[in-house]
Amino acid sequence: MSREQRIRIDEVLRQPGPEGPRSVEEIRAGFRELMARMIVPHGSIRTAQTTLGDRPALRVEPKGGPAEQAEGGSAAGTILYFHGGGWVFGSPETALSLTGNLVARTGLGAYSLDYRLAPEHPFPAAIEDALCAYRALLDRGEAPSAIVFAGDSAGGGLAVTTCLAARDAGLPLPAAILAFSPGTDATRTGESMDTKEGIDPIFTRAGLEHTGAMYLAGADPRQPLLSPAVHADLTGLPPMLIQVGTNEVLLDDSTRLAARARAAGVDVILDVTADVPHVFQSFAGVLDEADEALDRAAFFLRQRIRAGGATRTSAG
Amino acid sequence: MSREQRIRIDEVLRQPGPEGPRSVEEIRAGFRELMARMIVPHGSIRTAQTTLGDRPALRVEPKGGPAEQAEGGSAAGTILYFHGGGWVFGSPETALSLTGNLVARTGLGAYSLDYRLAPEHPFPAAIEDALCAYRALLDRGEAPSAIVFAGDSAGGGLAVTTCLAARDAGLPLPAAILAFSPGTDATRTGESMDTKEGIDPIFTRAGLEHTGAMYLAGADPRQPLLSPAVHADLTGLPPMLIQVGTNEVLLDDSTRLAARARAAGVDVILDVTADVPHVFQSFAGVLDEADEALDRAAFFLRQRIRAGGATRTSAG
Repeated sequence: MSREQRIRIDEVLRQPGPEGPRSVEEIRAGFRELMARMIVPHGSIRTAQTTLGDRPALRVEPKGGPAEQAEGGSAAGTILYFHGGGWVFGSPETALSLTGNLVARTGLGAYSLDYRLAPEHPFPAAIEDALCAYRALLDRGEAPSAIVFAGDSAGGGLAVTTCLAARDAGLPLPAAILAFSPGTDATRTGESMDTKEGIDPIFTRAGLEHTGAMYLAGADPRQPLLSPAVHADLTGLPPMLIQVGTNEVLLDDSTRLAARARAAGVDVILDVTADVPHVFQSFAGVLDEADEALDRAAFFLRQRIRAGGATRTSAG
Repeated sequence: MSREQRIRIDEVLRQPGPEGPRSVEEIRAGFRELMARMIVPHGSIRTAQTTLGDRPALRVEPKGGPAEQAEGGSAAGTILYFHGGGWVFGSPETALSLTGNLVARTGLGAYSLDYRLAPEHPFPAAIEDALCAYRALLDRGEAPSAIVFAGDSAGGGLAVTTCLAARDAGLPLPAAILAFSPGTDATRTGESMDTKEGIDPIFTRAGLEHTGAMYLAGADPRQPLLSPAVHADLTGLPPMLIQVGTNEVLLDDSTRLAARARAAGVDVILDVTADVPHVFQSFAGVLDEADEALDRAAFFLRQRIRAGGATRTSAG
């Protein structure tokens, strides 16, 4: 175990920021600066600006192009990635260490969506953009069984809620959902909201409510697309891998999402790493647990894409 | 998804057995017969009878010998495997599809322990034998960081309780625990004991209590080594992968073990597959979910052994 690495990461994240509430632009700039320090596997990927549905997106491909599947030779599949940032900040660039590491490890290509942010565009703008992006992939002929949704934090929540929205719109569902420390409860009723306060080096209830209110814009949080871990019927969702750290006020967003998925008959893996913070996978290259978690995530995605391909073949 | 496969397995397991309570010898013979129908990857492994500590054991090796680690060239590691059977029936042979598939997929060698069974040898005989086997591995110079404990059902419980016994004896701990549908609660207080009755094609509360009483032999079930999911302090245990199906009265033995491990600061992956029965991994070669779960288990074991090797190198 890399106990020393875990402690050092905690110390870095606890360094005090400026006092007092910050403006939206200050929050966005601070997050850009923090995430610019993460290691992107530039040697293994190439990126390009593009659009998907109605929105800009960052195309991320493995160098040398997406891997071909052994059987059949069709393109291996696509990761539709949703960045984190409380539905208020972040961008495909701030999540590029995560998206890039998944692409490099899986050989799959990704689109990281630049969905609209609050407060300018509150709920459900982000979900609308994400659903539109998924429709665009389907419309260009990508098989749903070769698409996976992935995301971190708010983007992990989006991976889930976009899947619910797709299901309710009658669309075929993707092969899997991968969520890093997903935000899945706008009611903030998880026990960890209180028990992990002070242990979580990043978030407090007050801080989350500050940006959370921008996304809600007065909407009732007790609804499936805002609090899927508490209020959604998850029936029919594809296999799900949820990774989370124990030093998170959002821990129970994950544990309750997993329990709810399990009760709804969804295959679900809840992968908990002790003593690491929110979206610790961002520290790939520095924290062993981050690389190991990403390796497990990549294994899961490849397995789900492979299984989807097998089903497709036997069905057709 | 292999929905048809899941349904067929359920039907096979529901075929009625002889009426009325069976003798211990009938139970043992029936289980031998059932498990003899599972597919063993004979082409990829070789087996030999041996002893480990005070007990017979089945040595299972990949054909061509255990894989060598890329870095360092030392032997890759050892799986210490504990078969299932309610501490009353089963043997290394009845678990050979599981042990063999893990060996074939990881390249690790395994010892599958023929621990003493109840009612002839009730609690804590099995744990004593398992701990003695682990000591034997350590005494012959195997690094604990290159040993993993694995087991199914009662054997999954043994993997956990033997680790607790090793910790309490001051021994260094293995690199990981892998448990397939572990039995971890002799108090039988999990909700699934009632909510999954009838859904579980194999077990009922009455059936489990019949053999459970033989292992308890009057001991109070409310103790760590009999009910680790409910009564053990799991602090210090190595990373754990728990795989379980939702068609199990024992489901909450897994969910509560995972929750308790998480609360104790243990890295823990709870990997739940919907609509499959107890130790569904036995159906490898027939049920896609079985093979996929074994692939994930093998990936986890290799990852933990590799991480242990890295730590060993940096520490020494």
